[in-house]
Amino acid sequence: MPSEVYVAGVGMTKFGKSDLTLPQLMVEAASRAIQDARVNTIDYVFIGVMSVEEFTGESNFAALITDRLGLPGIPSSRVETASSTGSAVFESAFYAVASGYQRNVLILAGEKMTHLPTAQTTKILAEVIERNERKYGASMPSLAAMITRRYQHEAKLSDEAMQSVLAKVAIKNHYNGSLNPYAQFRKIITAEDYFAARFVSTPLRTFDCAPITDGAVAVILTLDKKPIRVSGLGHATDTMAVRHRDSLTSFRSTRLAAWQAYNMARLSPKDISFAEVHDAFTTFEIIGTEDLGFFPHREGWKAVEEGGTSIKGRLPINPSGGLKARGHPVGASGLAQIAEVVLQLRGDMEPSRQIPGARIGLTQNIGGLANNNLVTILERADRYRPIPVYWKPDYDPGNVKPREIPDEPLSVDKGTLETFTTLYTTPEGIPSPLTLGFVSISDGRLIMGRAADENLKIGQTVNVEKQGDLFYIRPSAPQPPPSPEKGMEGVKRWLHRALSSPDPKGDDR
Amino acid sequence: MPSEVYVAGVGMTKFGKSDLTLPQLMVEAASRAIQDARVNTIDYVFIGVMSVEEFTGESNFAALITDRLGLPGIPSSRVETASSTGSAVFESAFYAVASGYQRNVLILAGEKMTHLPTAQTTKILAEVIERNERKYGASMPSLAAMITRRYQHEAKLSDEAMQSVLAKVAIKNHYNGSLNPYAQFRKIITAEDYFAARFVSTPLRTFDCAPITDGAVAVILTLDKKPIRVSGLGHATDTMAVRHRDSLTSFRSTRLAAWQAYNMARLSPKDISFAEVHDAFTTFEIIGTEDLGFFPHREGWKAVEEGGTSIKGRLPINPSGGLKARGHPVGASGLAQIAEVVLQLRGDMEPSRQIPGARIGLTQNIGGLANNNLVTILERADRYRPIPVYWKPDYDPGNVKPREIPDEPLSVDKGTLETFTTLYTTPEGIPSPLTLGFVSISDGRLIMGRAADENLKIGQTVNVEKQGDLFYIRPSAPQPPPSPEKGMEGVKRWLHRALSSPDPKGDDR
Repeated sequence: MPSEVYVAGVGMTKFGKSDLTLPQLMVEAASRAIQDARVNTIDYVFIGVMSVEEFTGESNFAALITDRLGLPGIPSSRVETASSTGSAVFESAFYAVASGYQRNVLILAGEKMTHLPTAQTTKILAEVIERNERKYGASMPSLAAMITRRYQHEAKLSDEAMQSVLAKVAIKNHYNGSLNPYAQFRKIITAEDYFAARFVSTPLRTFDCAPITDGAVAVILTLDKKPIRVSGLGHATDTMAVRHRDSLTSFRSTRLAAWQAYNMARLSPKDISFAEVHDAFTTFEIIGTEDLGFFPHREGWKAVEEGGTSIKGRLPINPSGGLKARGHPVGASGLAQIAEVVLQLRGDMEPSRQIPGARIGLTQNIGGLANNNLVTILERADRYRPIPVYWKPDYDPGNVKPREIPDEPLSVDKGTLETFTTLYTTPEGIPSPLTLGFVSISDGRLIMGRAADENLKIGQTVNVEKQGDLFYIRPSAPQPPPSPEKGMEGVKRWLHRALSSPDPKGDDR
Repeated sequence: MPSEVYVAGVGMTKFGKSDLTLPQLMVEAASRAIQDARVNTIDYVFIGVMSVEEFTGESNFAALITDRLGLPGIPSSRVETASSTGSAVFESAFYAVASGYQRNVLILAGEKMTHLPTAQTTKILAEVIERNERKYGASMPSLAAMITRRYQHEAKLSDEAMQSVLAKVAIKNHYNGSLNPYAQFRKIITAEDYFAARFVSTPLRTFDCAPITDGAVAVILTLDKKPIRVSGLGHATDTMAVRHRDSLTSFRSTRLAAWQAYNMARLSPKDISFAEVHDAFTTFEIIGTEDLGFFPHREGWKAVEEGGTSIKGRLPINPSGGLKARGHPVGASGLAQIAEVVLQLRGDMEPSRQIPGARIGLTQNIGGLANNNLVTILERADRYRPIPVYWKPDYDPGNVKPREIPDEPLSVDKGTLETFTTLYTTPEGIPSPLTLGFVSISDGRLIMGRAADENLKIGQTVNVEKQGDLFYIRPSAPQPPPSPEKGMEGVKRWLHRALSSPDPKGDDR
């Protein structure tokens, strides 16, 4: 039997634009966690950083940090899984403690990003994308935007309704961030602010995308009994190429990881008091709450509309402000989610943002474009544990079969447009604006293509032509330009109901 | 009690210059290990790569590899500790299995390096060096060269004797590599070859330095009982700056890691049948054998002279050919050492290079300039285990105390030259040749400095002047140029005795 693993302490820096170096940020977070944990010894230091070599020009970073901590001698390893690094380093540290070989382990995750030009940062972040899709100039926001448009199509939402849902996620998370002293953005945003912001990649605007952030987080795990216990871990990958997935609007990596975490914890989605969900893009929060089993597929947006995911709702999502408002130092976000859950479960929050009676919290952290995801469940060690639950999801989670990577077709005549976007913030070296789409061809494969402009419609037949090594999409009949997004009035009415007046908790969720 | 962890299988690619991509190399190594292990499922994939983003432009590498393996879904994390990555990823995987949460774990380590110009590779590898020392243009070979010259001084060896010892290490490891079908270099080298090669950084020549290599290695760990067991792991860091160390000629990170590994395995250095020691530079093999407790400090060179570390000697060191001849794909070398030990312990080697009766093998792997080192001990599971041993080293290994990083002095007048080198293969952007030295100043601190040329002598008083942000060293009285290195004839005589005629094993080591 593995040993139980407890959280001894947490600490973090304020997230945002910082003049400190990454080692300085990490030392600050570590000092706070060590003070919080009151441990006498640290036996191992696990470091989580995503692209530290490219962001800062430093390698050998695990040893660098133990030196800066004044602890040269202590073993140290760096763990990395792109933007889910913060959760992955927690997982590896958990195993080291659960094995019984390490008693007190310090986990440190951080990233320093704001010092580089945005186009360069976008390029570094785009290296997580599959090489063929990257070749077209696809960035993280453009892929998220195409997933958003596809979600709207499958959920049968009007442009107005979809924009309105996304705005509500952004406004909710900024509201939560305004209560969080560690958040990058501490100002609430209004419907006017949301709709006045420019498009990053249609239909996603500035407030739909997590910012570029500096920050560090520390968590100490221990074999000694403490008030918070790690109860469930799940971790799963998916194909690199988005076009090779079985769905554009649900992430199998989250579904598999959630199933593992619930089973290890002997819990079901109904047992979760609140969750930190990876909202690098507002759409991803909605999809996340569906993949985690909180809401049925394509219906997560309804909970946002009803205010059920606001901090006073029945299932608060991202009480910290999420990646959206707390900020997103890529390697640190997963550990920041875990730190938020620990503080909420301990009841240590400022009263304005304490979730009353929270006993079990969950985090969901996305690596890359949702191809290395982790789910982590923590609980109060004094929680009464009734009969264990074996959660059966409504999909087959165990079906990981070896597969061949589909060949890329050499030439294509025509196909059906599955989704598209126009990207305005392109990676370094790619001209802006850039319209991209996914087209399904006769044998069911998806291909990526570039298009001349946005006169496109999901479901229409398009001609495809190869120029150089890229496919180009041409609509067989041009569409009218998409209607300008509206919905501001609806968001204003929702705002009052969902955030200002607490929603009494019910047990019938 | 943690679970016992066994090695189910190993596999590797031939090391050298390859036209394959790193994912292709990793898939090849993984296929061989899966075939060797005959496991039906893989529950987790741990990936070890050092600077994959800078060498290949790919990030999110753990997910990329599970995809290429045809296993999207399986959880995957990347672990990194610079050049000891191969051992560190093995350690994290070990914890995952020992915790009981993972049954069969695939560990994959690799690096693709030969496609870049040498100056660029040297620059990427130099990012492991502390920022201040890097500023002077210090590269890994130049620091290793200064350590070598200091070792010679402390061991009271003549130039001729030191060159002769280094040549013997290189010739021995190339001889071993000639027997290893996976080695990059399969040709023996002669004393003439060694002494004809150019200096990389005085007194180190081409054959003293591990090459630039492509390659990948796979190891599968399991909870199921198999013939080879993991019996000891040790891991320790040291200061980033070489000038902040307590010794220039012994690595505290190795000593600490060795002590931990021996204690976990309940073994002493006397129990080890053979070892793979991190010979990125020939000197490091000698220092490694001392730090591991095989030989007294400053006397490791005697074992080389006596032929005791050759493949037929009493304690074979680097039967694989070591980093020197097998090659050094930086993230993979530690796991290649482990694979060699597994095959030797299983008795699966070609008869020409099988170490007879090998029951316990050890690997020592250096991260950075010896500031993140690991020691791993494996043994035959059927080995008779007498009374457990608690090894007491002749140093205090437990003395890890928090420390302040010493300030860099603002100005210096004079000091004592502790060691120096002239580097010919400088990192990108640094003019060649470059003479560097370490100088001790009145309060005992070491500083790095540049010098005009090599008319220097260890122990002499030097003047130091600051120009810009660099210190410059000027000898108060110029020295005669160092004598040209000799010793070829002695190496030729040694060659016949140490490698050609097997040395009968004795029990009195």
